Amino acid sequence: MSGRADIAPFIAMEVAREANARAAAGQSLARFDVGQPQFGAPASALRTAEAALRADTLGYTEGLGAGALRRAIADWYGRAYDLDIDPGRIVVTTGASGAFTLAFLALFDDGAGLALASPGYPPYRHILKALGLRAVVAEARIEDGLQMTAGLLDHAAAGARVDGVLVASPANPTGAMLSDDALKALCAQARALGIPLISDEIYHGLAYEGAGASALRHDDEAVVINSFSKYWAMTGWRVGWIVAPPRLVKPLERLAQNLTVAPPTVSQVAALGALEAREECEARREIYAANRALMLAELPGLGLAPVVRPDGAFYVLVDISAHGDDSMALARRLLDDARVAITPGVDFCETRGRRWARLAYCRPREEVEGGLERLRAVLR
Amino acid sequence: MSGRADIAPFIAMEVAREANARAAAGQSLARFDVGQPQFGAPASALRTAEAALRADTLGYTEGLGAGALRRAIADWYGRAYDLDIDPGRIVVTTGASGAFTLAFLALFDDGAGLALASPGYPPYRHILKALGLRAVVAEARIEDGLQMTAGLLDHAAAGARVDGVLVASPANPTGAMLSDDALKALCAQARALGIPLISDEIYHGLAYEGAGASALRHDDEAVVINSFSKYWAMTGWRVGWIVAPPRLVKPLERLAQNLTVAPPTVSQVAALGALEAREECEARREIYAANRALMLAELPGLGLAPVVRPDGAFYVLVDISAHGDDSMALARRLLDDARVAITPGVDFCETRGRRWARLAYCRPREEVEGGLERLRAVLR
Repeated sequence: MSGRADIAPFIAMEVAREANARAAAGQSLARFDVGQPQFGAPASALRTAEAALRADTLGYTEGLGAGALRRAIADWYGRAYDLDIDPGRIVVTTGASGAFTLAFLALFDDGAGLALASPGYPPYRHILKALGLRAVVAEARIEDGLQMTAGLLDHAAAGARVDGVLVASPANPTGAMLSDDALKALCAQARALGIPLISDEIYHGLAYEGAGASALRHDDEAVVINSFSKYWAMTGWRVGWIVAPPRLVKPLERLAQNLTVAPPTVSQVAALGALEAREECEARREIYAANRALMLAELPGLGLAPVVRPDGAFYVLVDISAHGDDSMALARRLLDDARVAITPGVDFCETRGRRWARLAYCRPREEVEGGLERLRAVLR
Repeated sequence: MSGRADIAPFIAMEVAREANARAAAGQSLARFDVGQPQFGAPASALRTAEAALRADTLGYTEGLGAGALRRAIADWYGRAYDLDIDPGRIVVTTGASGAFTLAFLALFDDGAGLALASPGYPPYRHILKALGLRAVVAEARIEDGLQMTAGLLDHAAAGARVDGVLVASPANPTGAMLSDDALKALCAQARALGIPLISDEIYHGLAYEGAGASALRHDDEAVVINSFSKYWAMTGWRVGWIVAPPRLVKPLERLAQNLTVAPPTVSQVAALGALEAREECEARREIYAANRALMLAELPGLGLAPVVRPDGAFYVLVDISAHGDDSMALARRLLDDARVAITPGVDFCETRGRRWARLAYCRPREEVEGGLERLRAVLR
């Protein structure tokens, strides 16, 4: 085994595995641990996929993705953000995961450092390590919504060589969003430092207190990553995209052709259909919004107050201090006593994660209600 | 742009682009350049995919792939090779491309060198470069079928640090296969050098002079890579797999979870159906076999004799010296004068590729016949 395959395993996986085993054995659980929407792809996506199965040989598309999908995604920026994006800047990828690999390789050489906020999505750090890059992990402040900010970037760049910065808004595990002003300031700060900004916008569309702007609004040079996995609920289809500055498209194309050939064709066809499903997706967002309201009404009274305001995505990060200082132990206890699975915060933030846990609210309403009821019985 | 994104573009792409443009404009071409089967996925694959679209939310599978598919692939080794493979050793990947990235990252640290034969599939070199690894390119001998052999590995290891060896049989661009004895000797030599052997078996099943053995027959520690793209004609679906030695499964799992989450679910479902389609796939192989016979009967008389015996895949590498010393120029001329697209050899072998060209014979029989007829008119 290589050194770079020596990635820390997810500590929380232990709880997830136990929850999976119990669910498989027929135990009825509330899955507040799972970041996977309860829904499948929108109906329009399934329709276009089914039609293609019958009509098309579904061979390779071009490395940058099917032209029709690239145009449709560019068009989406017009409709959803009022931004005019050239389809030539859209790089369709194998999920947001594929987008990160390609973007990191296109932007950075061995040993480069990427500033990112802690808490954050653990694979950011692990992908960087696997590719020979460095995560410059910066402890985000609660008063900043635990977000990457211009100030935090400055602080990180003062302590280590920083060759780029990553921001995710709404963020995982907090659901927190940067204000438009804060995002603008961050973009300006990255420009001032002369480093690229990578904006993970995978949870865009899932916002409950006003939609957030794309980083592209403030910085045409931003490298934006998004996916059909969350708003369009197409996790297993593995289609995402990059909006790249024009000078980066050729390098991304060469990397994509060689490392992937192309993203999955049937999934690209389905994604093209999904872009027509705004009504269905908005109805689903309403379901998440209702779940979120239930959570926010109940959790503080259970000694599980949100650490920061969960504006979007379908996560809330809670402070578990009222129940001890070990979120792993609490997660195990809740799985046993309340049949509720939660994600201990340890993988999201090394320093503070023991006092935090993430609850996802993308499951059916009855499951959320049932889970909260059982939490009440156990924790009050 | 990073230095490692500075991958050499495919020179042959210029001809392919021109051929694509003419085909799109309605010109009837013989596409001997395209390595993509004329067929789509087998009927049983489409059936299982369609059923899943209706019945399943198609969320993420596990990072190593769906358990049912891993078991079915292991079972395939029993049926097709009479090999007993533990399903726990099967890692389902996003195409063979995804398999290479994961295998290279799991096996090698920055700067490691992988011996590979020239001519060969150009992305091998480019993936290695993008991942900070070195291709130790060894000029294969015509008398060895232009294949990697024990002797060639020895020679490569004498001239540079070699940390692993890659073999592809049947190979692209030659279709050449290693004899069972030669493969056994290569496996033994890799073991003697204490380095892992990676066996690209993506063209297995497409053999016309007796099936080749898997490297697993000679070396249980071999890292075998295969895919549903060729024998099962599922290029655009992006499903491949690794058969890994047990100690490598955990590292591969961690890398897969972080870099990909999981391979596309609908494609995995289709692949499971494809494994039932042996009869359909064998009938397709017969079509390629007839095309191959046509090619082998005609090409020598056109001054395009095969450089080595094309035992498998759907490629033949021809010597173009009778028509000059510039395969790019010949490719352009044949596109203009014969409406036949071929792939100049320059990307496959830097030193000898100008005298070689690759012809693929995976297109419909009428297209192959028509192309050969027009070649006759132009070249004789």
